[in-house]
Amino acid sequence: MPAAAEAALAGGPAGPRALRPYLDTVLAALGDGADRRRGPLPAGGPAAVAARVRAAVRPVLPDTGVGAEAALAGLVRLLAEGAADPADPHCAAHLHAPPLAVAAAADLAAGALNPSLDSWDQAPAAAELEAEVAAAVAAEVHPGAARPDALVTTGGTEANQLALLLARELLGPGVQVVAGAGAHHSVRRAAWLLGMRAPHAVPTPRGVLDPAAVRDVLAEIRGPGGAPGPALVVATAGTTDAGAVDPLPALADAAAAHGARLHVDAAYGGLLLLAPARAHLVAGLDRAHTVALDLHKLGWQPIAAGFLAVRDDADLAPLAYTADYLSADDDTEAGLPALLHRSLRTTRRADVLKIAVTLRALGRAGIAELVERTFTAAAHLAELVEEDPELELYAPPTLTTVLFRPAGAGDAAVGALRRRLLTDGHAVLGRAEAGGRRWLKATLLNPHVHPGDLRNLLKLVTEAHRAPALTPRQERENGAASDAR
Amino acid sequence: MPAAAEAALAGGPAGPRALRPYLDTVLAALGDGADRRRGPLPAGGPAAVAARVRAAVRPVLPDTGVGAEAALAGLVRLLAEGAADPADPHCAAHLHAPPLAVAAAADLAAGALNPSLDSWDQAPAAAELEAEVAAAVAAEVHPGAARPDALVTTGGTEANQLALLLARELLGPGVQVVAGAGAHHSVRRAAWLLGMRAPHAVPTPRGVLDPAAVRDVLAEIRGPGGAPGPALVVATAGTTDAGAVDPLPALADAAAAHGARLHVDAAYGGLLLLAPARAHLVAGLDRAHTVALDLHKLGWQPIAAGFLAVRDDADLAPLAYTADYLSADDDTEAGLPALLHRSLRTTRRADVLKIAVTLRALGRAGIAELVERTFTAAAHLAELVEEDPELELYAPPTLTTVLFRPAGAGDAAVGALRRRLLTDGHAVLGRAEAGGRRWLKATLLNPHVHPGDLRNLLKLVTEAHRAPALTPRQERENGAASDAR
Repeated sequence: MPAAAEAALAGGPAGPRALRPYLDTVLAALGDGADRRRGPLPAGGPAAVAARVRAAVRPVLPDTGVGAEAALAGLVRLLAEGAADPADPHCAAHLHAPPLAVAAAADLAAGALNPSLDSWDQAPAAAELEAEVAAAVAAEVHPGAARPDALVTTGGTEANQLALLLARELLGPGVQVVAGAGAHHSVRRAAWLLGMRAPHAVPTPRGVLDPAAVRDVLAEIRGPGGAPGPALVVATAGTTDAGAVDPLPALADAAAAHGARLHVDAAYGGLLLLAPARAHLVAGLDRAHTVALDLHKLGWQPIAAGFLAVRDDADLAPLAYTADYLSADDDTEAGLPALLHRSLRTTRRADVLKIAVTLRALGRAGIAELVERTFTAAAHLAELVEEDPELELYAPPTLTTVLFRPAGAGDAAVGALRRRLLTDGHAVLGRAEAGGRRWLKATLLNPHVHPGDLRNLLKLVTEAHRAPALTPRQERENGAASDAR
Repeated sequence: MPAAAEAALAGGPAGPRALRPYLDTVLAALGDGADRRRGPLPAGGPAAVAARVRAAVRPVLPDTGVGAEAALAGLVRLLAEGAADPADPHCAAHLHAPPLAVAAAADLAAGALNPSLDSWDQAPAAAELEAEVAAAVAAEVHPGAARPDALVTTGGTEANQLALLLARELLGPGVQVVAGAGAHHSVRRAAWLLGMRAPHAVPTPRGVLDPAAVRDVLAEIRGPGGAPGPALVVATAGTTDAGAVDPLPALADAAAAHGARLHVDAAYGGLLLLAPARAHLVAGLDRAHTVALDLHKLGWQPIAAGFLAVRDDADLAPLAYTADYLSADDDTEAGLPALLHRSLRTTRRADVLKIAVTLRALGRAGIAELVERTFTAAAHLAELVEEDPELELYAPPTLTTVLFRPAGAGDAAVGALRRRLLTDGHAVLGRAEAGGRRWLKATLLNPHVHPGDLRNLLKLVTEAHRAPALTPRQERENGAASDAR
């Protein structure tokens, strides 16, 4: 039988009193775990992490509980000790942001109150807050539009999926998606999910979509009688591999000339709209019919914090949808707002709270400053690489992604070097293929990185490159143990 | 410019120190908001809530930030004051659970560390923790299966979507979904999303699927040469309207006789597997190919905490998927676990942490006790309704949903009564159509409800029913103001 305390609720007037001791435990365990980890990720590779997790969590469902304090302390410490923590300056592999403390704290309230954004009577204030924030985001993306709108998503993947779905519904199931070879993988996966034909992948030898190539592809898309056939051009403002930005205005022209829709995946670059010194990098976003953006990348939110912005809210008509128990006609006529058309999910967490708190707390100037700091760090890292004769830079960064590698290293060695840094617990760097070769990828998102951190990061890379490589067998032994499953 | 404190990070060794004062602010604001609300939801209806939210949040993006403390205090209080709080005993409309404090506290760590479950190098321990919990959940649902597995989802809607997707991929795009008229709306929406034909809706005059009717429908589904055609039967263990459970073993027989797949939407009832005294209610779940379950319903988790359990992990083959930057072949061969095939999302929060902490904290016995308390409350509410000559009970509850209404009230009056209780801020009850009439719906999920709370709830209903009804115009004036958008 659980003592009353184990089963205390997070909400209601007694919620704060129940939460406080547990939060103390969580904070202590987070600190303890970070101390034990001593770096950006745990050393030892997947096998060592898996062994620690199994020892701590089994049995997952004991007959008698171990109690709230013990479970919290043990598993939160485990997660912290075994994290690849983006708050560490040497954790810079992916578009995996270190969240702001103010945002993480706000998100606690979303969990404790647990509003669900599928009906007004589960989320009176949260529903209105979401509408306000969505309207503000929509106005930033499409400032000249008469009726812009935005939907909250779990991230760029869901936003891209929605963009393809809207194209399918508005242009018909035969719509052809045209995307660059460097577009996010979720574009291809969304087409499969939605039962659409596979996207036409336009080669991007220079890393960005060539408008002339897109024009040529569109010219081949013909409907009955040779008229331009239905098409959706997908451009990217911040590719996953190199942080490249497609030439948006020229692509908008190409799409418009064909009568195609334009979606821009700006999951990475969209937030630059709020940074006056960098907004020119994403100029032309407002010409897209739909735009994906993620505030859990630049934006420094805990996952999830995505949006799909649409230029004209009439384009959202295909999502019109009601269910009698959540949004009956007589309820809607009596003024209870219906919400199901705001998402493909039903039950839905108030991710908007942390976003609203962050935007209000920092304001445009605060956000812009964090963007500047992050861009400055990326530019500095690129300079350090260029100055180092042992390293080679792919190209000056467009956004905050820096591709580099040990001078003269082969592709396999670059892959092994990255894994060596992971296994040693020294650095979390990504990888990318660009210009026909493999590179280490540093995706900088941490606004608090110091020049010294960046120098140390490069030193770790060159030292690991000089050390003897692990054999494939040694690597496999560090890999995930497969004994248990 | 943000002071350093406004932009402090939640992770790393300094994270706990940055979080602590903000958490104090959040707890104070949660308490303050609950005190101001003085009940299950704010009085005044949508217009009053909207006005308060707008006043507090505009401008959403000020040029200069208001600072972290002010933003947190203001918006968290706003959300709490404007919540329909499921921790209040009179908030019982939907499958909208009051979360446990231990789960909400654990979830803070997921936000602060921000692991993303799309690659091992963003989530070393979290990925392994998810695998462990998924395996344990899968073994509970399909105890006799050789290779059960489970995926974490945002809820029943995503789980149902995945179940349909797997059927489409395993049986072909012509697969016919057969579901009861009372199946969750997301089944129909998923078929549309996935480009599948609309589900065949089998009437359920008695509230549950009739296996003979399903057999008849299946008999009409024929492929080439008159052989049984591809079909997916969707049964429900806990309908949204009445908490009814379809006869699972007989439906499994019917599906098997046709060679159809069987999916059970057990988003509501699935957790009964852990409660020995109630598990018989969902007997036969293990015969389904796929099962949806939500621990943010019974399970008392903050949103989101869904699963899709599959009997045979080979059925997940259609989700096989890699992206070079997240799961390159040489990385996988070297032992870095690939994760993209575990979800249709890419970036993905570690929702599994709060679940793992709760299961370990309470154990099987603790979970079972909370289930028992909730069932006892529902049974007691039904008894109180039956004893009250002013009220009419639809039927004894199967799970924890009680349908009732003022004796002799018409459908329109029931709808208006529900809205009256909402607008007065007195009670959050749902609505359902059953047996050809409209009912108030109390979905009990709060294990701490007292008999006195339930008596008071019914008193509020009968008093509101006796009071003069609001005119349609009065109702509209309480509705959401449309001036701003």
